[in-house]
Amino acid sequence: MPQDNASYDDAETGDAAGWHATVLTLYPDMFPGPLGTSLAGRAMVKGLWSLDAVQIRDFAEGKHRNVDDTPAGGGAGMVLRPDVLARAIDHTTLEGDTRPRILLSPRGKPLTQKKVRQLKDAGGAVLLCGRFEGVDQRVIDGRDLEEISIGDYILSGGELGAMVLLDAVVRLLPGVMGKEASGEDESFESGLLEYPHYTRPSVWEDRPIPDILSSGHHGNIAKWRHQQAVALTGERRPDLYEAWAKTRKKP
Amino acid sequence: MPQDNASYDDAETGDAAGWHATVLTLYPDMFPGPLGTSLAGRAMVKGLWSLDAVQIRDFAEGKHRNVDDTPAGGGAGMVLRPDVLARAIDHTTLEGDTRPRILLSPRGKPLTQKKVRQLKDAGGAVLLCGRFEGVDQRVIDGRDLEEISIGDYILSGGELGAMVLLDAVVRLLPGVMGKEASGEDESFESGLLEYPHYTRPSVWEDRPIPDILSSGHHGNIAKWRHQQAVALTGERRPDLYEAWAKTRKKP
Repeated sequence: MPQDNASYDDAETGDAAGWHATVLTLYPDMFPGPLGTSLAGRAMVKGLWSLDAVQIRDFAEGKHRNVDDTPAGGGAGMVLRPDVLARAIDHTTLEGDTRPRILLSPRGKPLTQKKVRQLKDAGGAVLLCGRFEGVDQRVIDGRDLEEISIGDYILSGGELGAMVLLDAVVRLLPGVMGKEASGEDESFESGLLEYPHYTRPSVWEDRPIPDILSSGHHGNIAKWRHQQAVALTGERRPDLYEAWAKTRKKP
Repeated sequence: MPQDNASYDDAETGDAAGWHATVLTLYPDMFPGPLGTSLAGRAMVKGLWSLDAVQIRDFAEGKHRNVDDTPAGGGAGMVLRPDVLARAIDHTTLEGDTRPRILLSPRGKPLTQKKVRQLKDAGGAVLLCGRFEGVDQRVIDGRDLEEISIGDYILSGGELGAMVLLDAVVRLLPGVMGKEASGEDESFESGLLEYPHYTRPSVWEDRPIPDILSSGHHGNIAKWRHQQAVALTGERRPDLYEAWAKTRKKP
């Protein structure tokens, strides 16, 4: 974390301390949006990360500055042009920029907490937000874009996907969360969904907090929580449960 | 779609035409945010859907208006109180409100395009955004909250999850997308990831569009696209591929 304001966000060199995101989008006004408040917003103010939202349309040419065109071979919708996107990518990634280049797309590999941790350690990312029917395959190949999907559903564009990815990464950056909330108990970190939580009041609408949690016996509480996490994961997420059970069987 | 402005968003009866979302959050200022622009924003202006963002803290009591407290049984972080959340839910869901009540949470069942279509048909949804370590289990049970997760990663809160869910639903509402972009070719709708797209220019950086797409033979193009979709799904998403192959084997 920089101690000196003058040392980061230096307009002359383009240097920026902290994790640095560049988002290429047709809707730069959406950013930082939700990322400007709460945990991510406070971390941005502290200089722990920074964000540039770049308008793809600024790299279009010709009278109409078209960014898209009809799909080759026919079909519905419009496809983002490879030349326009490549100019936007090339302009925003200087030589020696080793940040991963990601295309948010339902065709991508699913985002996981493991991937989030890898991206955190990469120092930043260039995020291209798809729109319309999709992006010309040649720019995906020609600019080594990694396709990532935040889930098995379709959004109107990649912008919300970029925000989700950024929020997940930023909360893990050093200095963002307090030491207490280090996140090691959280869902996915252990391979299991999280156990149920309870807090005050001790009885609510005739529902008491489970006795075990008032016992003061930390060992029994940890055991109960683990059992609850195993049971919930088995019920809701047989896929995670199987993967977890496999790792348990190893010597 | 309402033809008469006076007939929807009627403050006296609380009636609203179109799909209606109520979001319970500690950060109501985040909304509509990205949902106020682009496809979802235009649909909101047209009255095809509406959104109330409700501040959970308004339902806290006592001098400090605390919404959270320490976890029963010990552990890191804070847990949202059941009494405060129940008051917020009860206040915003009048009798006869049959909209599904959803808690965005990494412990939930994964959101899928099938679920998105179900929610679209439900007329609306009440979305509770978790924060901190989580939500007291008793209010999840006592108010029949359905836990939904947008993916296997951890966010700083449920707000981005709510936005993702809403964006996915809203784009499917009648009148939001043009007829052309009906979405039937899209990833997940067929059980396969989408085939690669190409558009102008016909050659870009020595990369030509595949010949088949210029052949004009619609049958061959459709076949090639299907083969590409099958190959990509097999490579990137063996889980989806297996599920798709199983349905193919049925008579």
